[in-house]
Amino acid sequence: MSAEDSGGRRWPGPVLEERCRRVLGRVGMDDEDARLVAESLVLADLRGVHSHGLLRLPVYVERIQRGVLDPRAKVRIVRETPAAAVLDAANGHGIPAGVKAMDVCIAKARRCGVGVAAVRRSNHFGIGWYFVRRAVQQGMVGVACSNADALVAPWGARKAYLGTNPLAVGIPAGEEPPVAVDMATSAGAHGRIVLARERGETIPPGWALDENGRPTTDPEAALAGTLLPFGGAKGSAIGLVIDLLCGPLAGALTGPHIAPLYSGMDRPQGLGHLFLAIDVGAFADPREFARQVDESIRAVRALPPAEGFERVQLPGEPEWRKEERRRNEGVVLPPGVVKALEDLERRLGLPAVDA
Amino acid sequence: MSAEDSGGRRWPGPVLEERCRRVLGRVGMDDEDARLVAESLVLADLRGVHSHGLLRLPVYVERIQRGVLDPRAKVRIVRETPAAAVLDAANGHGIPAGVKAMDVCIAKARRCGVGVAAVRRSNHFGIGWYFVRRAVQQGMVGVACSNADALVAPWGARKAYLGTNPLAVGIPAGEEPPVAVDMATSAGAHGRIVLARERGETIPPGWALDENGRPTTDPEAALAGTLLPFGGAKGSAIGLVIDLLCGPLAGALTGPHIAPLYSGMDRPQGLGHLFLAIDVGAFADPREFARQVDESIRAVRALPPAEGFERVQLPGEPEWRKEERRRNEGVVLPPGVVKALEDLERRLGLPAVDA
Repeated sequence: MSAEDSGGRRWPGPVLEERCRRVLGRVGMDDEDARLVAESLVLADLRGVHSHGLLRLPVYVERIQRGVLDPRAKVRIVRETPAAAVLDAANGHGIPAGVKAMDVCIAKARRCGVGVAAVRRSNHFGIGWYFVRRAVQQGMVGVACSNADALVAPWGARKAYLGTNPLAVGIPAGEEPPVAVDMATSAGAHGRIVLARERGETIPPGWALDENGRPTTDPEAALAGTLLPFGGAKGSAIGLVIDLLCGPLAGALTGPHIAPLYSGMDRPQGLGHLFLAIDVGAFADPREFARQVDESIRAVRALPPAEGFERVQLPGEPEWRKEERRRNEGVVLPPGVVKALEDLERRLGLPAVDA
Repeated sequence: MSAEDSGGRRWPGPVLEERCRRVLGRVGMDDEDARLVAESLVLADLRGVHSHGLLRLPVYVERIQRGVLDPRAKVRIVRETPAAAVLDAANGHGIPAGVKAMDVCIAKARRCGVGVAAVRRSNHFGIGWYFVRRAVQQGMVGVACSNADALVAPWGARKAYLGTNPLAVGIPAGEEPPVAVDMATSAGAHGRIVLARERGETIPPGWALDENGRPTTDPEAALAGTLLPFGGAKGSAIGLVIDLLCGPLAGALTGPHIAPLYSGMDRPQGLGHLFLAIDVGAFADPREFARQVDESIRAVRALPPAEGFERVQLPGEPEWRKEERRRNEGVVLPPGVVKALEDLERRLGLPAVDA
């Protein structure tokens, strides 16, 4: 049990999923869509990515109740070629739209070697790993990215323009857990800053400027100012590429025009996503590929650690370990999250869960 | 004329290309392949990316003369699906192999919406922008990446394992120059460190550790130690993804097994590349897309600059400006580069160029 799991009740993942589904069902979401959203949020909490876990449920519910997110939207393909597709999420939730889009990529990749799908008129899509995992489970390389409302200043600017534009990549392995990249292209994830404010913690230097353009470690000041891209000009360039692929290419809005998840309650978010699946079997013998990826993973893990590191870990390895453990032991949620879930249930007239 | 162009002779691009072609022709390279290599190297010098310009010609020639790079290799497709292909570079130069692979991607993208091509048994491929530009000129989004010999420590390690694994992305615009990302996934480009050593300059902090694992700004110590990834864990993850896609997926070697360009003269490099082209027309109306990309470019450029910046520039904008100017005014090469070119010509019995 890790230090952060000490104290506080441990919730079995399936119980949390069920509670999340009931809440979403009560505000009108189709059962299958609610199942997908619940699975994604709880997967985030299982992996220790609480910023994208049940923490987000209240704002999803609020957007539905205010009529700016359609819980019964039917995502559909509006444009298609043998290896590419554009989907219209019809202002539904980003998670079921993303699942549909990734499944389109997987089907196309099986026939063509690769599949790409862009999604327009969508909303916040949770953790990218949730989609990428589907490709990995089919022996494919998966990529998922999304644009988002303006929170990050491009390199050299002092004003937010880009979203935190997440990028996820999954590479299947053999006996080892898959390589799982899932990152915001901001220096810090917006959700982690929200959570730091929630917990009364500071944020690391280099993450943000305050509203006067000065560096800050205060999450409140950061949320009033602008986040910074990761990796300077390079990370900024990657964030811009994501905005253009998920915006103009998908037929969705760009950063400065996207409604913010929390403060833009007067209109749909209007953001876009891009998904890609590459069928390993179109390029290599899948068993030989898996063997070589395992070999790479083990070689990286065996490297001598730098000062300040106990050991070298692969992308997604800490999250994988947490998920394995928490699937057995249950998840300890941040206190504010449990209370918000209970408040929601009470307000929606759902029976209390013994707590 | 920029400060760095002051002093020193200005060479017209076409003259440099011709000299480069003659050198490569003299050591046995096919004329068309030599033309492509010369075009890429001089394009790099035109764009101010001298680390990937004619600076590299001597080592290419040396590898050919030592028999570890085949100047007459014929790249061929060894595996193919409707939207994907694997090419065997047959130990030829990476630049003609990459051009062939990107052209396969473009042709596949025209039919299928997207095309991906992996290249195995290849060598150093110069600047990624050279390939990506071909896709952009066809109204497509282009991506190019390559793995390379171990120079960069993965996040948390103190020993080099990853190459500087470059990533290039091009997005076509309308009236504006295209968005042109072309970056090493190390904090600094290896070539810029070689050049800094050449020029007796230091390198920025954060780029490298010395052989004892301590931070250094001495290019000599950096080249004896290890480079660091850009953007910490995030950039390291991107570098690893590139190594796995260009290595096991392409059927090429991974970082620690690739022969170093300069010091691994006893064997072929054996590295791999991955290319991707996305046909904008499969997703959106290309004119509307171009208009929106222009709009985004202008909006970013109009953002208020941060402290220490004169103005906000798009990825590739400084290089574009240099290229435009130098195509008219000519290129000033770093002094060591001109001398090395003259030495090469003399040694190969080529007539001197008035200098």
